[in-house]
Amino acid sequence: MTSILVSEVGPRDGLQSIDRIMPLAAKKAWIAAEAAAGVREIEVGSFVPASLLPQMADTAELVAFARTLPGLNVVALVPNAKGAMRAVEAGVHGMSIPFSMSETHSLSNVRKSHADMINEIAVIAGLARAADVHFAVSLSTAFGCTIEGPIAEDAVVRLAEAAVKAGAMELSLSDTTGYGNPAQVKRLVRRVKAAVGADMLTTLHLHNTRGLGLANALAGLEEGITTLDASLGGLGGCPYAPGASGNIVTEDLVFMLQAMGIETGINLPKLLMVREILVESLPGESLYGFTPDAGLPLGFIS
Amino acid sequence: MTSILVSEVGPRDGLQSIDRIMPLAAKKAWIAAEAAAGVREIEVGSFVPASLLPQMADTAELVAFARTLPGLNVVALVPNAKGAMRAVEAGVHGMSIPFSMSETHSLSNVRKSHADMINEIAVIAGLARAADVHFAVSLSTAFGCTIEGPIAEDAVVRLAEAAVKAGAMELSLSDTTGYGNPAQVKRLVRRVKAAVGADMLTTLHLHNTRGLGLANALAGLEEGITTLDASLGGLGGCPYAPGASGNIVTEDLVFMLQAMGIETGINLPKLLMVREILVESLPGESLYGFTPDAGLPLGFIS
Repeated sequence: MTSILVSEVGPRDGLQSIDRIMPLAAKKAWIAAEAAAGVREIEVGSFVPASLLPQMADTAELVAFARTLPGLNVVALVPNAKGAMRAVEAGVHGMSIPFSMSETHSLSNVRKSHADMINEIAVIAGLARAADVHFAVSLSTAFGCTIEGPIAEDAVVRLAEAAVKAGAMELSLSDTTGYGNPAQVKRLVRRVKAAVGADMLTTLHLHNTRGLGLANALAGLEEGITTLDASLGGLGGCPYAPGASGNIVTEDLVFMLQAMGIETGINLPKLLMVREILVESLPGESLYGFTPDAGLPLGFIS
Repeated sequence: MTSILVSEVGPRDGLQSIDRIMPLAAKKAWIAAEAAAGVREIEVGSFVPASLLPQMADTAELVAFARTLPGLNVVALVPNAKGAMRAVEAGVHGMSIPFSMSETHSLSNVRKSHADMINEIAVIAGLARAADVHFAVSLSTAFGCTIEGPIAEDAVVRLAEAAVKAGAMELSLSDTTGYGNPAQVKRLVRRVKAAVGADMLTTLHLHNTRGLGLANALAGLEEGITTLDASLGGLGGCPYAPGASGNIVTEDLVFMLQAMGIETGINLPKLLMVREILVESLPGESLYGFTPDAGLPLGFIS
């Protein structure tokens, strides 16, 4: 637990949750500034049809741009095999597909049963291997679903095994709905690692919907998680809407990790300044996080 | 770790940080509603001179009122022996004194050196024993000070031992400045428990200044902490001011504990409704917490 990868997902998960379209130039400035601050992985967008999510229409351009930034791991979300082909063509280093542990949610969201999803994962795994692209499966709604409620842990374990069998190179557990709690995070990380091998589950994707995001992150760290997704300014959450679901805040997460003596490779004062790009390009949009307002503690060594 | 005492400190720590004076009737309604929701301990105010802190002028009346609520442990803060006499006279079940681990902070805040504070603690301990009142010493700025910066852990351990020797019946570790991180919480709780006996350190008082409050609480639970201070709505914090320092939010804390299967005795839906009293009696005041806006997860059993 001496080095953790903080994976910035704001340009994908943050932006996809807000209506206003961020100009391409601002997205590029954001990505470049985070990379310059030492962020080593950024999910730059999603290869969904532009008609469904206009915010993500420029993902291929962002991949091409991000690939020019030295040392940056450029990843994107893909909803299906078609999106995966586009991602590979665009030149991503890695791609991930959300696989909803709630079959009801999967059917209502992407109109696919669990069996259909496993087939899709197998097809994408083939594409990924052929193109030498990393392919992760994100076990979404793993901690609970807004339609089904609680999700049986046995089901998550079983579906994790099926995803690996279908060719997933890595899994992540995703608290899409912000239902998770630290005890559950520990239990589920432990069970999935035991089922598929510790090296196959490295990542947690957490939301701060009920304020437990960093406590859940800590629980994950204690179970050997080494990658944490986060969004600058918690972009995409809204405290005034039921089901508010912003990602954990990159700034607060990096502060926590560095204060604990965990290496992230990120220059925290520089990271805090990147927020200005969001403030300027998305005026009036709600941003979250406490460290940006409070500042770093006196004598804090970043 | 199956039962935790959530100690509500909003009527003291929350209110003392805001300018507007909450009417006595509203304070009573707040305290009564939390007690009715199952909160078993409330710090109802502070016995500081009313000239210094007009918000706390009615603390004796609140103690008398709170004492009529069945099963409620009624506690108050005392800055010195004079305040302790007033607290005993008012009929508190317990009282606590903040003992700043930063001598600079102690001198600037209460104009007392560490040696003076230990003398004061000894005098109050005598008063408390004679009156059969519980007396706790809160080791404040234990995780860092806004004037001195980092505080040596050796100094905290040494001062903890001195406070116990002077007659403290219990200690709490207080992250007054929101500087703490989970690794530090674990280390310091472990060290202080080892020095003074595990039963002497039961309580953490945490602020959410940099968003780490619940992660720090989790770290404390894992080290055997059994009492957590919190403030309804995180009252008293301000995200737009440098050094914003609201307590951890009672609603989010209780959600976390109950989601983890830890008993608190609190009815969470009822607790969430108490917030309305703050909204109505302090219009426009910033309230914090995520669970009140997001609501409880579907299928959540409180």
